[in-house]
Amino acid sequence: MKKITTNLDNFQYFYPYTVNIVGAQSGEQINYMACAWHSALSFDPPLFGVLISKKRLTHQIISQAREFTVNFIGFDQVKLSAQMGRISGHDKDKIKECQVELAPAKIIRSPILAQAYVCLENRLIDVRPYGDHDLFVGEVLAVHEDEGCFDLNGALDAAKIQPLLYLGSDLYITIAPESLKHVLPD
Amino acid sequence: MKKITTNLDNFQYFYPYTVNIVGAQSGEQINYMACAWHSALSFDPPLFGVLISKKRLTHQIISQAREFTVNFIGFDQVKLSAQMGRISGHDKDKIKECQVELAPAKIIRSPILAQAYVCLENRLIDVRPYGDHDLFVGEVLAVHEDEGCFDLNGALDAAKIQPLLYLGSDLYITIAPESLKHVLPD
Repeated sequence: MKKITTNLDNFQYFYPYTVNIVGAQSGEQINYMACAWHSALSFDPPLFGVLISKKRLTHQIISQAREFTVNFIGFDQVKLSAQMGRISGHDKDKIKECQVELAPAKIIRSPILAQAYVCLENRLIDVRPYGDHDLFVGEVLAVHEDEGCFDLNGALDAAKIQPLLYLGSDLYITIAPESLKHVLPD
Repeated sequence: MKKITTNLDNFQYFYPYTVNIVGAQSGEQINYMACAWHSALSFDPPLFGVLISKKRLTHQIISQAREFTVNFIGFDQVKLSAQMGRISGHDKDKIKECQVELAPAKIIRSPILAQAYVCLENRLIDVRPYGDHDLFVGEVLAVHEDEGCFDLNGALDAAKIQPLLYLGSDLYITIAPESLKHVLPD
């Protein structure tokens, strides 16, 4: 028997979601934030979407830069995620204060995060408002991956990487590598 | 040093993603599919998005029904996910063949999945094409949750529920409850 509620003040039933650090450079301004609301949108062409509140400095900078990088971090970077998620670039220079290490991208101007195990370079192709967030849609132009973290099909090696997952309410968790299963329909 | 690739034939670097079973009823037709591409879109109003290929029967049925349910399942339901993900409703009656147990929703006509630990009832408010998938946007009207699986803030109890995570390439995994951490920015 399930409990039914129509009060959605605590709308976080859908977690755990992996955390990435998303941001861009516009002119001399650089800002990044932690993002748990994201999804792949299309295989062909490869499109990736991130949800960003209009209040965030990252919203303004990606809108100006017309590009962004998406940087997935490991469970050991949980403190970075908490800082990049809860502090706004309007208030502090997070790149300096959080000791974010930047590295050049290959195709776009905005840097990637050196601490991430995989980084996506994106050209902004659409911004669409949904309630209190906007969906930023990127065409993925290049991927930077730590050597040996993915197999030849691009599947994460669960024995090597502990991805950072957000559970809501400032709670974080990671995967249990020994639970891995390969399952086909029949 | 990271390996850089611009060949995105294997576009699955962003996993693990939680799996849900999404679908609807239109007239007498009911169909559901496994979906790993999804995200919350907005807190206020509560909006939730799922990506569905135009080829899927679920695409057609949700488009007609103008509503859908999103049903998150546990790691013990991995076989159901593989079947509901890899088989199309165009080819088989998945509800019968996969032993899906349906239960009535509270507000909409489309049923929820009894096997899920949490189910969202959604009214369809937007469909938008992104490459080879369409984004279906739902306004969340009600939530059905298994008793004791979420705390009062709606955060999943990691000691009670093992959510099903998809890693790509027919690989599945779940969380490590003992890794749970509560982390604040400072």
